[in-house]
Amino acid sequence: MSKGIPDQNKDFSAWYNELVKKADLAENSSIRGCMIIKPYGFSIWEKMQSILDKMFKESGHYNAYFPLFIPKSYLNKEADHVEGFAKECAVVTHYRLKNDKNKKGLIVDPKAKLEEELIVRPTSETIIWNSYKNWIQSYRDLPILLNQWANVVRWEMRTRLFLRTSEFLWQEGHTAHSNKNEAIKETLTILNIYSDFLEKHMAIPVLKGMKSESEKFAGAVNTYCVEALMQDGKALQAGTSHFLGQNFAKAFGVQFTNTNGKMDFVWGTSWGVSTRLIGALIMAHSDNNGLVLPPNLAPIQVVMIPVFNNEQEYQNIISLFDKIGEKLKKLNISFKIDDRKHHKPGWKFAEYELKGIPLRIAMGPRDLEKKTLELARRDNFLKETISINDALPRIQLVLDKIQKNIFTKAALFKTENTHSVDNYKDFKKIIKNKSGFIYAYWDGTAKTEEQIKKETKATIRCVPYDNKGKSGKCMVTGKKSNQRVVFAKAY
Amino acid sequence: MSKGIPDQNKDFSAWYNELVKKADLAENSSIRGCMIIKPYGFSIWEKMQSILDKMFKESGHYNAYFPLFIPKSYLNKEADHVEGFAKECAVVTHYRLKNDKNKKGLIVDPKAKLEEELIVRPTSETIIWNSYKNWIQSYRDLPILLNQWANVVRWEMRTRLFLRTSEFLWQEGHTAHSNKNEAIKETLTILNIYSDFLEKHMAIPVLKGMKSESEKFAGAVNTYCVEALMQDGKALQAGTSHFLGQNFAKAFGVQFTNTNGKMDFVWGTSWGVSTRLIGALIMAHSDNNGLVLPPNLAPIQVVMIPVFNNEQEYQNIISLFDKIGEKLKKLNISFKIDDRKHHKPGWKFAEYELKGIPLRIAMGPRDLEKKTLELARRDNFLKETISINDALPRIQLVLDKIQKNIFTKAALFKTENTHSVDNYKDFKKIIKNKSGFIYAYWDGTAKTEEQIKKETKATIRCVPYDNKGKSGKCMVTGKKSNQRVVFAKAY
Repeated sequence: MSKGIPDQNKDFSAWYNELVKKADLAENSSIRGCMIIKPYGFSIWEKMQSILDKMFKESGHYNAYFPLFIPKSYLNKEADHVEGFAKECAVVTHYRLKNDKNKKGLIVDPKAKLEEELIVRPTSETIIWNSYKNWIQSYRDLPILLNQWANVVRWEMRTRLFLRTSEFLWQEGHTAHSNKNEAIKETLTILNIYSDFLEKHMAIPVLKGMKSESEKFAGAVNTYCVEALMQDGKALQAGTSHFLGQNFAKAFGVQFTNTNGKMDFVWGTSWGVSTRLIGALIMAHSDNNGLVLPPNLAPIQVVMIPVFNNEQEYQNIISLFDKIGEKLKKLNISFKIDDRKHHKPGWKFAEYELKGIPLRIAMGPRDLEKKTLELARRDNFLKETISINDALPRIQLVLDKIQKNIFTKAALFKTENTHSVDNYKDFKKIIKNKSGFIYAYWDGTAKTEEQIKKETKATIRCVPYDNKGKSGKCMVTGKKSNQRVVFAKAY
Repeated sequence: MSKGIPDQNKDFSAWYNELVKKADLAENSSIRGCMIIKPYGFSIWEKMQSILDKMFKESGHYNAYFPLFIPKSYLNKEADHVEGFAKECAVVTHYRLKNDKNKKGLIVDPKAKLEEELIVRPTSETIIWNSYKNWIQSYRDLPILLNQWANVVRWEMRTRLFLRTSEFLWQEGHTAHSNKNEAIKETLTILNIYSDFLEKHMAIPVLKGMKSESEKFAGAVNTYCVEALMQDGKALQAGTSHFLGQNFAKAFGVQFTNTNGKMDFVWGTSWGVSTRLIGALIMAHSDNNGLVLPPNLAPIQVVMIPVFNNEQEYQNIISLFDKIGEKLKKLNISFKIDDRKHHKPGWKFAEYELKGIPLRIAMGPRDLEKKTLELARRDNFLKETISINDALPRIQLVLDKIQKNIFTKAALFKTENTHSVDNYKDFKKIIKNKSGFIYAYWDGTAKTEEQIKKETKATIRCVPYDNKGKSGKCMVTGKKSNQRVVFAKAY
């Protein structure tokens, strides 16, 4: 394969791993399951953060910061929550090292043992609801609409760059409300922010719905989610928004005086997306030539490459690029002029294909004469030659087209890989083939869900919004089913 | 005192602690030494981050992210470094909890003991230089100019909100260079970015210089610093920039082929500022009425408060405020219209004084008639009545004046509290009184430095830039001294 990346049609997993490294997005560290996010990968995360942060703030949320550590006893207060997280957490037991006189090494100082162990946060519901207890007395203190950008740790056994790492970066929203309806509304507001972000910026069409009991967040009443389809037909949970009911308020004793002067428990939500989204972005759009980044999230949207035979040509081209650059800057279009002389244009073309720069502009001796530029799109490799005078509006328009085309392509893929089946035999066949989203009837029991998972590796991704109320019979047990749910093999 | 804050002239420390809480900036969490940064406090940090991040990027730096955990053995590789940090670090020893069948509680699973303990990063030199080993082969791979925004943990015994906390937020830059001069230049570039940030944005005049051997960073060749003077006469180290020489390159075996084809060790720098800056901001400017925030860092720069007797007046004033707000938005001036009816104007005035909003605009029935507004400055309490038509240019101008006045006031304070002394008796008297910065001759030995610290609690803040080459005699030992150094009691 070109660029030493495995063929994605032959080994999607190897293609992904190698692409992440070759495109200089991230690498494994020497600490089990923890990744190093390299500058290029991190700049994509910064773009994601900046757009999402703006969306959260425009919908009334504020950022805050809570401690990294959670006392062990807090985790224990919400029964489901502890069940979900205790088995995979990093535990701090001591607060000092000392020199071992015998072995000449550094050892944990046994005298510096903590009275109560601290857990490195796997998520912050417990520490935050413990604070809300002091912040909330009356309905006047509500709602509280907080978000936090933070690192969290879940001691995963099988890890993959971006998709599943022991430490990852994320945002976690934690809101408190005086009534149930407002809390549910908040849960859905966030779900819509997530789906807008995925569709408009990441160019990934999503499936929205509610998780089954088995798949919901440990401690939630309901978990809503946005699910995305990767090019290998597997689903990826891209974001979740949890309606917590009064669970955490009850666990931490968070009560308030309502407008009638009576005491009640506070209603809560929590929601998050993580650096996993970078994995989704890669697996949804990229190809055997490298990354394909939608312009809205590309750290560099336009790259300009000179093609020249002599110093004079080089100077003239660079000077024209500089002028275009000034105009792009005013339009907030990010760009790079690659003026390096020790690399050939062909090498650079391949390099920026690998990096997924949406639009490449090349200018050679002939272009100089004719006052033209060559535009080449990363998404579909189409090229066109345009007059320099038309450059700016054309670049804007083409970037816009690229953004839309990447979405359209992904939407078509989703449609082609979404199936509706009525019997378990067909279901198994499709799952074994290329999975995709499968709408099927299920009897609503954890037992049947577990059986399907065991036999096919498919899980219920969600009870979708888009086909409510059409009842039928479970494909496995034949029992009554209220509506089709969506199955898939998933990351 | 008004607002229940202690008098800063009587008990500066109590004033500070209470102000941080009353102004809703931060609070202590239930985890020893770890703070909760509340939304208002965090929004100041976000402003700081955004300005600094831009300055770093404009000078060629990129952000990245390295793991939270550092293997114990890494810490041990640089001798001074381990000495500096091993005594105050959080140690992860296990990766799982389990239910104890007897006690019905949650316990650390003894089967889940890590082979090698992990340290929660107190700073990231070791993990980063361990990565640089793989990233750097030739001079072509240099320089590497990275920065990371992260949380770090140092197990402090005595903590104070923002000033010294077990967990804090910071940025840490880590750069790698092919030669000594370039690395030193980088160290100083950053020092200048820090001093510009403090002076232009935080409105705090700084003292720049180099740390003594005893005070330098554990693992550095030289530590450069910016020191600020607080209103109680104590110094605060606001930022440090370290020239690491080849220390970490040697500890981690990071070599490269230079332009002559020979192998050499890489030269390094590291530098950081933290949420401690928020403490500095408070202690440099604020007063008995509450926070005083320079407009460049104030989350809300202008607050508009209606003063009304009836609904019609209220509506008319709010509608005029909305119009002013639209114009402020275009000028990127942040504002809040406090249209709450259940609080009296006087209550609001006190509230926004406490929160340090630089400029307050009030409009009452008479202003409505006359088409005027009352502007009130937080920094000096001056009021003026202006015509609505002149509002916009006047608001801009006044915000500008406030920014400058806060700096001028702090600069005057610094001048008044900077002393030059020639004998130890005078030195002791001044230190005992209100400290301040004291320029004095010192013989350059750690012994004398330690004696002075023991006897007066004053430390050498830095060997300053501004009085090089004037030699004299040490105020304690009478031995020769190359130049005056600056002493102070410090946070």
